[in-house]
Amino acid sequence: MREPCPVIAVIGASGAVGTEALSILSDRGYPPGSVRCFGSARSAGSVAPFGAHRLAIENLDALPKTDADYALLCADTETAHSVRDRLRGTPTVIIDNSSAFRMDEDVPLVIPEINSDLISHETSVIANPNCSTIMMLCAIEPIRRAYEINGVSVTTYQAVSGAGRRGIQELHSQTRAFLEGESITPEVFPHACAFNVFEHESELDPVSGYNGEELKMIRETRKIWNCPTFPLLPTCVRVPVERTHAQSIIIEIAERANIEDIRRCYANSSLRLSEPGHALTPREITGTDNVAIGRIRVDHTSDAMRVVLWACCDQIRKGAALNAIQIMETVEALNRDVVYI
Amino acid sequence: MREPCPVIAVIGASGAVGTEALSILSDRGYPPGSVRCFGSARSAGSVAPFGAHRLAIENLDALPKTDADYALLCADTETAHSVRDRLRGTPTVIIDNSSAFRMDEDVPLVIPEINSDLISHETSVIANPNCSTIMMLCAIEPIRRAYEINGVSVTTYQAVSGAGRRGIQELHSQTRAFLEGESITPEVFPHACAFNVFEHESELDPVSGYNGEELKMIRETRKIWNCPTFPLLPTCVRVPVERTHAQSIIIEIAERANIEDIRRCYANSSLRLSEPGHALTPREITGTDNVAIGRIRVDHTSDAMRVVLWACCDQIRKGAALNAIQIMETVEALNRDVVYI
Repeated sequence: MREPCPVIAVIGASGAVGTEALSILSDRGYPPGSVRCFGSARSAGSVAPFGAHRLAIENLDALPKTDADYALLCADTETAHSVRDRLRGTPTVIIDNSSAFRMDEDVPLVIPEINSDLISHETSVIANPNCSTIMMLCAIEPIRRAYEINGVSVTTYQAVSGAGRRGIQELHSQTRAFLEGESITPEVFPHACAFNVFEHESELDPVSGYNGEELKMIRETRKIWNCPTFPLLPTCVRVPVERTHAQSIIIEIAERANIEDIRRCYANSSLRLSEPGHALTPREITGTDNVAIGRIRVDHTSDAMRVVLWACCDQIRKGAALNAIQIMETVEALNRDVVYI
Repeated sequence: MREPCPVIAVIGASGAVGTEALSILSDRGYPPGSVRCFGSARSAGSVAPFGAHRLAIENLDALPKTDADYALLCADTETAHSVRDRLRGTPTVIIDNSSAFRMDEDVPLVIPEINSDLISHETSVIANPNCSTIMMLCAIEPIRRAYEINGVSVTTYQAVSGAGRRGIQELHSQTRAFLEGESITPEVFPHACAFNVFEHESELDPVSGYNGEELKMIRETRKIWNCPTFPLLPTCVRVPVERTHAQSIIIEIAERANIEDIRRCYANSSLRLSEPGHALTPREITGTDNVAIGRIRVDHTSDAMRVVLWACCDQIRKGAALNAIQIMETVEALNRDVVYI
């Protein structure tokens, strides 16, 4: 780490992603003095845990223009726009977890393992992809390095914490109510989330029938892979899991391959490869860093050659906070000529 | 209904499927005097609800050879083999919910809406397909009548009651334990089922990597569609839902079609079509008869023309007990020249 350590402003420090970002920064050895926490007027004045320390959450309005080297934005799109406007022209590099800038042409959308080459000394805003996009593309990357990919379809099992802490609270309160035989009124989600599964709650496009989460996956994948017409067919579904998304992914490749060929692709990757017969589950992956892969199958029954994967990823870590911090460390490495990842 | 009403032996009357069969028979107006309940030595002597009535469960060993017109087998494969051996040569028509005879060449595997023409006056054993197969093929049938289908991939969200009552008990007890912060030991399933999702627990084929549930879907679909090499690509997953399976289904068709074309296929079907923006969920479908379809999408982005569906089905009703009773009524209609369905 450079001396003095870079100053990092974590914005939205009391939310699910902000809390996780602080935990990861602490785990990675960033000193508490290098981290400043910001939040809305509502959370300002409270404290956020940072390892054994507690950091004061300052009112975002107090965010100084030039103090921070990095602004890790763990807030909504409105806050993201406001912070970018205020930091424009300063040396602070913004790494944004919201969808505010993801499709902006001049903003790189980065998963460090895939396209960190888009980051340059001039980059001032970097967007963190959607959690479902990050985990799917990380899961596919070892195959993409070895094979031409003609198409992907993905079906998701998304944890309720994708909707923040309120999602978990609703899952718990509804679950308790159902177990007691009481009725419930959904608030965070449009449907009962306890003991139920339902289409992702993001806004539905009335023409295509795709929901917002699915459209994000399509558009972000095309941008990250620089392939504007790539055929991705996603179906996004919420399941009553607290944390960690799972996905069933079907990858159409241009050449024939067998299971061992595909397994070899993963052998030297950073992904966690499940043992056959025990595909890792969301509960086992929660709190861990790497995307887990399991149930590798190959399908030769149709004209297309298809690879099938089961993937799990703690969507608050690699799907959000951790990826953002890895982006920050990639910038820092570029600026300081040191390697963190 | 013919007079006198046919005598129906429900075997496995105290299990999840047997209980549901009794409920459906009662709802459909079968008199309690026409139904006899059988079970293992363990459940013999207890009673089973039949509408407002309670029927004594007799020891299966007392099953008379010639008394019943129909034996609705709602038990395991071992019991199915034993009962068939004992009823061989009698006029009793066996309708079996287990997987014991499904792939037997001389046993029709029937979903009445699709292939009831396989039933003849000579049929003595009819197999009920696996619940996941029934719901998927019912969901696809209106499209199959209008379009040539080149391939299907399906990803499931399967309720724990697929493993019987013990599955629901384990889900409830584990859920309570997790909410109280207690640890759990999985018993019915190999993984924690509360707040988790995991690959279907059926035995894994070590060569292909498919689990037993997936292989059933492949083999049964090929048999029912009479297409021995049909490319079906299933991924079967358990979710913490008490009852009613859901599936995300991708159907590759040979012609171009738009959403309205596909919607028209369903307009005159027996399937329940969700309104756009509110795809029916397992909780809403539990206890109902028809397979529900929602989220119709069409995908033109790849070379193949694909239709995407979300399907829900109470797997204990149409996926098991109801389909078996519909098979029985199809036989009865054939024998009596009356139409029940």
